Amino acid sequence: MSFYDRLRAIQKQNNSLLCIGLDPDISKLPTHLRGVQDPVGEFCCRIVEATADLVCAYKLNLAFFEALGQESWHTIHRVVSCIPPGIITIGDAKRGDIGNTATMYARSLLDDFKFMATTVNAYMGEDSVRPFINDPEKGAFILALTSNDGAKDLQYLKAKGKPLYEHVIAKGKAWNDRKNIGFVIGATRRSQLQRVRQLAPKMPLLIPGVGAQGGDVQLVVQHGCDSNGEMAVVNASRSIIYASSDEDFADAARAAASALHREMNTIRERYF
Amino acid sequence: MSFYDRLRAIQKQNNSLLCIGLDPDISKLPTHLRGVQDPVGEFCCRIVEATADLVCAYKLNLAFFEALGQESWHTIHRVVSCIPPGIITIGDAKRGDIGNTATMYARSLLDDFKFMATTVNAYMGEDSVRPFINDPEKGAFILALTSNDGAKDLQYLKAKGKPLYEHVIAKGKAWNDRKNIGFVIGATRRSQLQRVRQLAPKMPLLIPGVGAQGGDVQLVVQHGCDSNGEMAVVNASRSIIYASSDEDFADAARAAASALHREMNTIRERYF
Repeated sequence: MSFYDRLRAIQKQNNSLLCIGLDPDISKLPTHLRGVQDPVGEFCCRIVEATADLVCAYKLNLAFFEALGQESWHTIHRVVSCIPPGIITIGDAKRGDIGNTATMYARSLLDDFKFMATTVNAYMGEDSVRPFINDPEKGAFILALTSNDGAKDLQYLKAKGKPLYEHVIAKGKAWNDRKNIGFVIGATRRSQLQRVRQLAPKMPLLIPGVGAQGGDVQLVVQHGCDSNGEMAVVNASRSIIYASSDEDFADAARAAASALHREMNTIRERYF
Repeated sequence: MSFYDRLRAIQKQNNSLLCIGLDPDISKLPTHLRGVQDPVGEFCCRIVEATADLVCAYKLNLAFFEALGQESWHTIHRVVSCIPPGIITIGDAKRGDIGNTATMYARSLLDDFKFMATTVNAYMGEDSVRPFINDPEKGAFILALTSNDGAKDLQYLKAKGKPLYEHVIAKGKAWNDRKNIGFVIGATRRSQLQRVRQLAPKMPLLIPGVGAQGGDVQLVVQHGCDSNGEMAVVNASRSIIYASSDEDFADAARAAASALHREMNTIRERYF
């Protein structure tokens, strides 16, 4: 099944645009977990268990795992393994390097850890992206427009009348012969998201920044989806995984995820 | 000691601009090493042992280590530990993500693995770079101009009359309050390298592509150095580490490194 079809299938099955971002900062874990073996793996898998019927994807922020050092390899494997089949697993690593090096990163993320999709940085161009899109069943979300302060430093530079991030989108479209490319779009303005959807009407958009980063749910659902009300992958991390820092963290995560899931579907029903 | 001073000191001590890139592809290792425990660590440390008086830096290409899976953490630690003190160790990871995530990557690379410098991708702007330059003793080489085919896809786009990579250089200069930023410049043309040195007369340039990638040694030494004939860090990987695939690989690596070291110094004596 192609990557796009896999995404559509799980979005239908769970009636969900929600992606939960697993950014497990060890200093923020519930204190009662700190004594267990592999607290980060335990924490993430408990969150997955409590929320798996509400999401289309989980996004593992690799930095938070790599910071664990020696244990990170086991923990990533454990977390990917506990995610039920059918749900999209995104290895959020934002890699970008020349072809032979990108091949090694792709091997690690797609073959070893078995992520279904990755995030990639296209600054180094086509050969840095290709190894992540060779397999049509696996997807790659290319960083286009991000939601952090630093986005303004380079991404809005205008070349040939359009901002750099639109050039990145144009490149991603041109490379999309296997129909498995999407974009990371941290849009904070309506006009931007409308414009991106105009440029890439059918491609998946991974939209971070809802929740702790203050993104507007109405905006991202109304303007981030394709014309069928699908193909937006709306990521929330901290507002869900740290909804409680007590023993009830998994229930609290479910409640937060469920509220966001419901809110997004109410908006979808209104507009699509 | 500041990062720039550390770099100057080792360049003087070993009279060298040479950086050896450790990109250990397991399929290319000498066959007699494949049976030993941790063949990649053994291979890299043997190369280091044979060449440490000829270099100013070693650059570990993290992709090649991560592709080892479970053993990668141990192997990276082993290789960093076998590099003699004073030599610059570069964790070539090209990370780039929002501030809190970049902090995690920096923790892994600078605190856990204890690299003295990293390579970073500045597409996401200042907050994605800051965690790598907080410590004035540690350096960060920002990707500006790369030497791969894909470089032409985005890096040459002209905004406000200058190519994107010059905007990246301008940003890196503006963020350089701790004097520990350098740039990755895979220049293949004289005019580019001259221009970069004009824009950043005193900053270190990490220049890959000499050797297997076909870069011109004369060009990079003559135009990549600062006015004192220093601060160019000229990387060669495959032409050195795979100089022989037999039991004499370390001696062959030394011979290749020594020839390049001598060639670069002959050019330095001519022009500086």
